[in-house]
Amino acid sequence: MLTFDEKKITSPTLVVDQRVCQRNIRNMLKRARDHQVNLRPHFKTHQSALVGGWHKALGITSITVSSLNMALYFAKHGWKDITVAFPLNIREMHKVNQLASGIKLNVLIESMEQLEALESALKFPVGLFMKIDAGSHRTGVAAENVALIGALINKIKSMDKARFKGFLTHAGHSYKATSKAEVLTVHQETTAKMVNLKSHFSAVAPDIIVSLGDTPTASLADSFENVDEIRPGNFVYYDVMQKNIGSCQWEDIAVAVACPIVAKHETRNEIVVYGGAVHFSKDSLTDNDHRQYFGLVVPMGPEGWGAPLPGCYMASLSQEHGVVKMDPAHFGKFHIGDLLYILPIHSCLTVDVIPDMITLEGEVVDNMKTSGANIYSDKTQVAD
Amino acid sequence: MLTFDEKKITSPTLVVDQRVCQRNIRNMLKRARDHQVNLRPHFKTHQSALVGGWHKALGITSITVSSLNMALYFAKHGWKDITVAFPLNIREMHKVNQLASGIKLNVLIESMEQLEALESALKFPVGLFMKIDAGSHRTGVAAENVALIGALINKIKSMDKARFKGFLTHAGHSYKATSKAEVLTVHQETTAKMVNLKSHFSAVAPDIIVSLGDTPTASLADSFENVDEIRPGNFVYYDVMQKNIGSCQWEDIAVAVACPIVAKHETRNEIVVYGGAVHFSKDSLTDNDHRQYFGLVVPMGPEGWGAPLPGCYMASLSQEHGVVKMDPAHFGKFHIGDLLYILPIHSCLTVDVIPDMITLEGEVVDNMKTSGANIYSDKTQVAD
Repeated sequence: MLTFDEKKITSPTLVVDQRVCQRNIRNMLKRARDHQVNLRPHFKTHQSALVGGWHKALGITSITVSSLNMALYFAKHGWKDITVAFPLNIREMHKVNQLASGIKLNVLIESMEQLEALESALKFPVGLFMKIDAGSHRTGVAAENVALIGALINKIKSMDKARFKGFLTHAGHSYKATSKAEVLTVHQETTAKMVNLKSHFSAVAPDIIVSLGDTPTASLADSFENVDEIRPGNFVYYDVMQKNIGSCQWEDIAVAVACPIVAKHETRNEIVVYGGAVHFSKDSLTDNDHRQYFGLVVPMGPEGWGAPLPGCYMASLSQEHGVVKMDPAHFGKFHIGDLLYILPIHSCLTVDVIPDMITLEGEVVDNMKTSGANIYSDKTQVAD
Repeated sequence: MLTFDEKKITSPTLVVDQRVCQRNIRNMLKRARDHQVNLRPHFKTHQSALVGGWHKALGITSITVSSLNMALYFAKHGWKDITVAFPLNIREMHKVNQLASGIKLNVLIESMEQLEALESALKFPVGLFMKIDAGSHRTGVAAENVALIGALINKIKSMDKARFKGFLTHAGHSYKATSKAEVLTVHQETTAKMVNLKSHFSAVAPDIIVSLGDTPTASLADSFENVDEIRPGNFVYYDVMQKNIGSCQWEDIAVAVACPIVAKHETRNEIVVYGGAVHFSKDSLTDNDHRQYFGLVVPMGPEGWGAPLPGCYMASLSQEHGVVKMDPAHFGKFHIGDLLYILPIHSCLTVDVIPDMITLEGEVVDNMKTSGANIYSDKTQVAD
């Protein structure tokens, strides 16, 4: 039952359906347990202590984050086992030490320069995952470069405060897939390379952990043989992009953005909302008619939102404006001052930029960046 | 002389060259005075009380913002004459009253619904600009719809606390121009429509203000005859997009993002930096070889940065990573742990998302959203 008061929403606000979100967490946890892999969810998607608590309540204790600042935020909120899945930035060694003094911290390395910086700066034990490029070609040591991989392992073994944990990869190219079959092909190729590496180096390094990221393969793969850990993030909310890839169904999308309607243009069947690039970010998709879109309109009911209204989509975004193309059948149902609910294309980036979040029940969703001061309050933070 | 300490930059940081920025403000102010139009700069680009102060020092007293929250921030910092250049969101009438109780506030209307909401809620006098769609087709009353424009003016004249100020437009389609000639065509068409409207309604409403927005036309137009006010914003920093349009030269771009280098991939001549979509936003351009790019690499010297290094560009962005393609001639000059300086494609959105900003002299640039807590400090805000 929808219990937040729509009247109190005065600016673009992310609404989280916590029943859907918690079901997504349970489903992913069940998949992990069924396949006997550790689930180390990536918290960059929600960046929220509250949503983190929903994971903790289900027994999850190890997490992934995308920056040392995010690790500090979650460490402050009681998380004790954190992997920072971003190439170690050697300019932030003070934060590495700050974290490692209190929790089990893993960082990512892929070069001798990073190991040398760690060797000279580390004051507390830190686990090291080696980032492997298994095909996405963003970053990491190429899986084929066993000479460098071996040299890095040997160097780590010689270090006092560092411990080699295993190989970590992110099959980022799975986001470009357009079908389950394509996702599974990426997964099989990635897994094969990682398992080969584990086997190749098992003599010099026993207990190598193979850690895979990305929501599409974690959501769809049928086999995780010889994989030790998965690190999906986006699954907690999903979004239109994941629906398009096939990772989820409409009813699994756990976030929508409530946007006040500020103008209507009948000759073009367009609605202008308060809700722009600074609320959604600018990720977009292209439909079968080659139209670019930045979000899809959903109808709101007493039990939450439904599937997208056909022919109603966010057609363009400027800094604060969103222009929504409406099917003529729906155009007349919405009025200036109403809220329009829009599913984001990429929930991770929308969460990162939008200042205000609440649950369907009206609870403020605190996160790393925001105070929630604008929500349910006549006073804005900036005016105090 | 570069006086900030590069060693203290540990995460992606926007660097502002205040000499260039102040020159941009002076130049735009001179243009406005030469053409006898009021300059009401749009502060959404910098969102900073410090940068606002540079305007105030030159005698600027009237400003534009893109949200009521931003108006509250600048009102708090002493600005007394503010136009919120966004269609009035009738869910935020409490903020309108809060502002109008203390400063000269103008808001934008384009519908009878907005006027009715104002009529029933206004407690203090507010100036109303009518948003006119002069060709960009984002929002506003179509310039040709004189029936609606007349009806709205009549309604405003019947209202107690509202005063009709004039016609306001934003020639957003000038951002799609690729040459000065195209920008000037947009400017001439826009101005003609606005001036016609002013003349058409001069009998019912004397003293109509014609207010034009957008940096390209404000930077390039040779004539502002019968225009009363210009509201450029981006000119304060400019960016790669404005350089491409022809609004500025390389030496006029007043911001660059300092990004720590976290990995190098020699076989691809690629450098991976800490600096992704959450720092740059995702606006991009396409070069002559149809390559999409998200920023351009500039060399840093003791007097600030120079023109972009040929063949060196940000080729892709994920949440925290940026992948930079380097010309082989430059690849070897940069090392893991160095800073790479990158000109943003669209400075307004970069400023909106990046948490940390400093001047070349090392002064923290406070802004509406950030505290600057991570800059020059071993303690992060989130860890306290």
